[in-house]
Amino acid sequence: MSAPDYTTIRVSRVDGVATVTIDHPPVNVLDAALMGDLRTFLLSARSDHTIKVIVFQSDNPDFFIAHVDMTLIDDPHAFDDIAREAPAGLNVFQALGELVRTMPQVTIAKLAGIARGGGAEFVAACDMSFGAIGRAGLGQVEALMGIVPSGGAMQYLSKRLSRGRLLEIILGARLFSAEEAAAYGWLNRAIPATELNTFVAELARDIAALPNGVIEAAKHVAPPEDLTLGFSSEQEEWARLFANPAAERLIRGGLARGAQTPEGEKQLEAILRSIEHR
Amino acid sequence: MSAPDYTTIRVSRVDGVATVTIDHPPVNVLDAALMGDLRTFLLSARSDHTIKVIVFQSDNPDFFIAHVDMTLIDDPHAFDDIAREAPAGLNVFQALGELVRTMPQVTIAKLAGIARGGGAEFVAACDMSFGAIGRAGLGQVEALMGIVPSGGAMQYLSKRLSRGRLLEIILGARLFSAEEAAAYGWLNRAIPATELNTFVAELARDIAALPNGVIEAAKHVAPPEDLTLGFSSEQEEWARLFANPAAERLIRGGLARGAQTPEGEKQLEAILRSIEHR
Amino acid sequence: MSAPDYTTIRVSRVDGVATVTIDHPPVNVLDAALMGDLRTFLLSARSDHTIKVIVFQSDNPDFFIAHVDMTLIDDPHAFDDIAREAPAGLNVFQALGELVRTMPQVTIAKLAGIARGGGAEFVAACDMSFGAIGRAGLGQVEALMGIVPSGGAMQYLSKRLSRGRLLEIILGARLFSAEEAAAYGWLNRAIPATELNTFVAELARDIAALPNGVIEAAKHVAPPEDLTLGFSSEQEEWARLFANPAAERLIRGGLARGAQTPEGEKQLEAILRSIEHR
Repeated sequence: MSAPDYTTIRVSRVDGVATVTIDHPPVNVLDAALMGDLRTFLLSARSDHTIKVIVFQSDNPDFFIAHVDMTLIDDPHAFDDIAREAPAGLNVFQALGELVRTMPQVTIAKLAGIARGGGAEFVAACDMSFGAIGRAGLGQVEALMGIVPSGGAMQYLSKRLSRGRLLEIILGARLFSAEEAAAYGWLNRAIPATELNTFVAELARDIAALPNGVIEAAKHVAPPEDLTLGFSSEQEEWARLFANPAAERLIRGGLARGAQTPEGEKQLEAILRSIEHR
Repeated sequence: MSAPDYTTIRVSRVDGVATVTIDHPPVNVLDAALMGDLRTFLLSARSDHTIKVIVFQSDNPDFFIAHVDMTLIDDPHAFDDIAREAPAGLNVFQALGELVRTMPQVTIAKLAGIARGGGAEFVAACDMSFGAIGRAGLGQVEALMGIVPSGGAMQYLSKRLSRGRLLEIILGARLFSAEEAAAYGWLNRAIPATELNTFVAELARDIAALPNGVIEAAKHVAPPEDLTLGFSSEQEEWARLFANPAAERLIRGGLARGAQTPEGEKQLEAILRSIEHR
Repeated sequence: MSAPDYTTIRVSRVDGVATVTIDHPPVNVLDAALMGDLRTFLLSARSDHTIKVIVFQSDNPDFFIAHVDMTLIDDPHAFDDIAREAPAGLNVFQALGELVRTMPQVTIAKLAGIARGGGAEFVAACDMSFGAIGRAGLGQVEALMGIVPSGGAMQYLSKRLSRGRLLEIILGARLFSAEEAAAYGWLNRAIPATELNTFVAELARDIAALPNGVIEAAKHVAPPEDLTLGFSSEQEEWARLFANPAAERLIRGGLARGAQTPEGEKQLEAILRSIEHR
């Protein structure tokens, strides 16, 4: 793999484990730059047979991937380049999720900070996910912006937890702790914060050291499920809701009140709930 | 919504949240009166677009809905009126569950006491359910009456927990605590008893305050699964078993030993296990 | 039921509960002798209507069923007799699992020690499973031998836990404690070690005492799912990997370093990871 010019991630490799460190200040929003870098890396890695395991982590102790860039409301064409290359029937965020979900390698999300919206969907698209107790947070907060998730959240989560818990996550729109997320099966498990790095490093190293063919065989016997119908349904509902004035009011109101700043992001749910949208 | 003459429930409304308080002494058995009131409320509420969230709770600190009225063994026609209006292929209890499960609103069961049999099925039919630690209890005790549940329990539970846990619930026929039920995914979560009211009130208020269309969109993307085949299978097995002398012995024996009284209900499993049925 | 001449198990019966005690020193490996005895018992019991519940336990405090006999690498025809009687399309281990999974009785695995590989698959094939805290261990360690499980593990587990947790179990290949396994839904629940015997004895007794027809009805309403496609996929991948030199190196290397001895089995994962396989 040549070393592309990434601006939002860094990639390091040791013995079959590639570690992707997201570093896109101030809070790692999922914008065209980060989407593009992640996509470039994934497309290159999927044909690199020397990579067995990919670990995603963040350089920011508070945020993994904050969420999709809310300023895109003023730049609706930001993803046009990426959209042109998305598989038929998938929007750009679903396409990113599916790229992750169908990697031949084992993908692991190491969650030491907060991931909301499209960031939480990225975590859910990975094969495995581990969260730091007292630090990690997961939230599908789209409802607070007047929309529903459309990057796969409801499809991914419906395969791992009950409809009742799914509706609580989507409509309650609260930030879940690592323990809460693990109890619901949203994360593989919650790990004491001081042990997360070692736990994931050992797991990744051990999986990378397995005899050739074992990872591929396991993934072949337990393939990702086909979620096409759900993707289409969520995209339709998202588009319908996004056209409402409430969504614009909430997104612009959120940005005006501190969303996408480190301080504002720490209380994003409260900020969004405080905005008059009717 | 006009105010119908309910005799077993009270309905209050605040800002898009309707709260249904079950008050049918001594232990809130699910009889024709309570079935009728719940059905009347649900049919009226489903077309009332000002209601966004429905919370079900009990006025009785010990019992949510005890179970289906066991005295019905002497009044087999009690539900005939309701049965005439049930959708084709559903018995009256399945029809009540499906009415709850397909409401356009978000339905929440707030469980601060015990719900067994048809009462536990009502809880499971709700979108979300929260139980008070140290107070809530869930049990499918039909096996102890010589029958299997036929109001949807096995269908609802098979969508949220493993077959092994389902068989333990149905055949072990024990009363599960809030923590046990949450660990199995039977409830959304177990909440400290002193916090349950506030937790549910805030969740209901926050969901009711979401922009228009979000609840509908989420429910559209995550629709209730079709359980028709299972409903038919459970009804058939129930009818076959209910015709056995053991069922009558156990139901009459239970009533003679204190079932449907506040004291008897606290140890219903032990009472039923003590009856000679062979 | 006549009393066959078992050499690796003992069977006792009390009031509708048959208890099968595995006693095949030194560590209860699943070899042709144990497979044969289990199969003989299961075939005889399935038509014995006086048996309602079957409890499987081990006489060895440290091991339930260690795993499939690794010395079979030198005796590829050991299972030929059993294979001739396996249903079309199932290998001998899948056939044993399916025999357990389709028993008309309720099958309970009482896990007070370690079960890896084919032993863990046997546990997962039972209707219910309960593990002793601090003593039970479950592991699918096949990946450390260069293969994937082919006795149903991935099929059974995919019905009770998420793909992310399944891949962690299969590729992480760690020994799970009772609490970890219960949190993932691999076991029904984890029980304090001193209470396990009483818990399972009471559950088995209570289920056996249910009125006639209730067990059959519950199993009819919640039948085991059809896993045929998955069985065929896992067998294919297993056979492909087993033909690689790495598998032979790891299996022979494991045996040379203490696998299948009581001491070696306590650290089997570490032993297998220490072997050079490339």
